[in-house]
Amino acid sequence: MKHLLLSAAAALSLAFPLHAQDAAPPPSPGEIVDAAKPDEWVPIAASDLLVMDLAPDANGKARRVVIQLMPAPFSQGWIGNIRKLAAARWWDGTSINRVQDNYVAQWGDATEKKPLPQGLATVPEGDYVQRVPAAEEAQLGRLRLIDAYAEAVDVEGGWPLAQSGDLYWPVHCYGMVGVGRNLSPDTGTGAELYTVIGHAPRHLDRNIALVGRVISGIEHLSSLPRGTGALGFYATEAERVPIASIRIATDLPPAVQPKFEYLSADSASFAKYADARANRRDPFFIKPAGGADICNVPVPVRVRPK
Amino acid sequence: MKHLLLSAAAALSLAFPLHAQDAAPPPSPGEIVDAAKPDEWVPIAASDLLVMDLAPDANGKARRVVIQLMPAPFSQGWIGNIRKLAAARWWDGTSINRVQDNYVAQWGDATEKKPLPQGLATVPEGDYVQRVPAAEEAQLGRLRLIDAYAEAVDVEGGWPLAQSGDLYWPVHCYGMVGVGRNLSPDTGTGAELYTVIGHAPRHLDRNIALVGRVISGIEHLSSLPRGTGALGFYATEAERVPIASIRIATDLPPAVQPKFEYLSADSASFAKYADARANRRDPFFIKPAGGADICNVPVPVRVRPK
Repeated sequence: MKHLLLSAAAALSLAFPLHAQDAAPPPSPGEIVDAAKPDEWVPIAASDLLVMDLAPDANGKARRVVIQLMPAPFSQGWIGNIRKLAAARWWDGTSINRVQDNYVAQWGDATEKKPLPQGLATVPEGDYVQRVPAAEEAQLGRLRLIDAYAEAVDVEGGWPLAQSGDLYWPVHCYGMVGVGRNLSPDTGTGAELYTVIGHAPRHLDRNIALVGRVISGIEHLSSLPRGTGALGFYATEAERVPIASIRIATDLPPAVQPKFEYLSADSASFAKYADARANRRDPFFIKPAGGADICNVPVPVRVRPK
Repeated sequence: MKHLLLSAAAALSLAFPLHAQDAAPPPSPGEIVDAAKPDEWVPIAASDLLVMDLAPDANGKARRVVIQLMPAPFSQGWIGNIRKLAAARWWDGTSINRVQDNYVAQWGDATEKKPLPQGLATVPEGDYVQRVPAAEEAQLGRLRLIDAYAEAVDVEGGWPLAQSGDLYWPVHCYGMVGVGRNLSPDTGTGAELYTVIGHAPRHLDRNIALVGRVISGIEHLSSLPRGTGALGFYATEAERVPIASIRIATDLPPAVQPKFEYLSADSASFAKYADARANRRDPFFIKPAGGADICNVPVPVRVRPK
C-alpha cells in the first residue's frame, strides 16, 4: 500500500474504501468544503481582483497570479494607489526582484527610478491599524482560537483579523500581500508589493500595510529561485522575473476575467471546516490537535462554478 | 535537558533597557545572534548530520541539503532506520517525488517497490509522543510563548518542543523533517521522508514522527516546481528530482564533512534573541508584537567558524 496521507493512490483508496458497509469516517476539512452549499459561497467582485501576468516560464507556460484586494476599512489609501498604478499600466515591464526563503517574494521597479503616476496618496502611519466602525464592532473570537500576538483572532468578512482592545488589524498569513516601505512609515506608496511565502511573519502585523492576498497562482512566486543577495534580492538583473502586466480584472476582456468566490465565515460549513482544521478526525490522524492558529484556518477560495 | 529560568528582573531589563537615550538603535535578532560569544554555540556532531546531494540543477550547480537528526529520546526507532538506510546507500537513485505548496517536499522511492535493507525496526504508535525521563523533567515555558496547540512550548536542547501534562513532543516548524506513513501508525519506516516548506502544519504534531530539521540548503527543496498531481505529487517521472546520494556526514571524507553549530537556548544571547523576535525594536518597526509563536523563534544554526 502506498503512503497514504502522502500519496495519490492513497487518496483514491480513501475515496473508495474497502469496507463500504462501515459507517463513513469523519470528513476531512477539504471534504467539508467540497460539500458546502452553493449559497454558502460569496462571489468576489472582479473590481477587487488584481491580475498579475509574469513572463512565460522557460517552457513557454503562462504564469498568472490573482490577488484579492482587501475591503474597507482596511488599507484603502494604499489600495487606491494600487488601482491607479494598475490603470496607468505602471507595473508592466517591472519585475519580481526579491525572493527570500521562508519569508517573502517582492515585486516592483528594481531601479527605483521609474516615475510614479500623478496623484498617489501619502498614507499615514495610523492606517496600519484600523478601528472597525462602531455599528459593526464586536469582540472577535467566535472561532475560539488562541493567538500569541493578539487578544483575539477570527475570520471576518472573509479575512483573517486580530484584535487587542478596540483595535483590529489584518494578519500576515501565508499568501497575504503587503506594501513594501522604507524606515519611515509613510514611505510605502503601494508600487512595491510582496507576498508571504513561508511561516506567517506575524511580527510584521501593524508594521506594514496589508492590502490583499494571493488567491490563485502563488506557486509562480513561492517556487522561484531564492535570491542570493542581501534579504533575498536577486544579485543580477538576469535573475529578475519580468512582469508582463498587472491589471484590475475589470480592465481585462469580459470573457477572460477571472471569477472567484470564498466560503462565508458565517456559514455552517465554515464552522465545521474550522472545527475540523483544529481537530482532524479523518482516518489518518491519531491525535486531534485541539486547537489551531489563525493562519492554519485559511479561508477556502475557489473558481466560481459555471 | 537543563532548565534555566529567566528571572523576572532579567526579563524586565530586556524589555526596558535603562539607557534608551544611547545613540545605537536596539539590535535586530540577527545582530544579537552575530554578537553571541563563541562559547554560546554548541557544535553539532557530524554523526548527527544527514547529507542529501540532489542531482545538479539545470545550470550544473550542486544542490546539497543538510539535515540535523534529533537526539534521544525522540524518534530513535526511526532514526536508527535512517542510519541503516544511509549506510546501505538505499536512497541513491531515488528522488524528490512530491512538492505541495505551503506544505511539504517529500522524497523516497517513487516506485515503492525498491527492497528495503534487512533489520529495519517497526516503531510503535507511542513513539510519536515522548515522555522526558523523570530526572530531567521540568515544565516547559521559560520563553513565555503562547501556543494554540499545547499547554506550553519552548526550545530545549536546541529543538522546538511542546508539552501538555507530562507529555512532550517536537513540533512541525518550517524545515522540520518527518517520516511519511500509511494509515496505520506503525507503517512509516523512515525510507519516505518530508520537510515542511510552508506555514507550520502543527496538526501533524503527535501524528507523524519528526526526526530532524533541515539546517542548510532548504531552498533546494522549497523552490522546486510544485507537483500538479493529487497532494502535490509530480504527475510524470520526468519531473522528479533525482537524489544522487544521502549519507551520514561521518561517511564522507573528513575534509568535506559539513560542520555546523547552534546557539544554545541556555545562553544569554538566545534569551535576548528570543525577546527580540517577540518584540522587534530595531528601527524599521513601529509596533513590537508583544509575543511570538514557537516557529517564529527558530534556533539559530550556522557553519562553524574555522
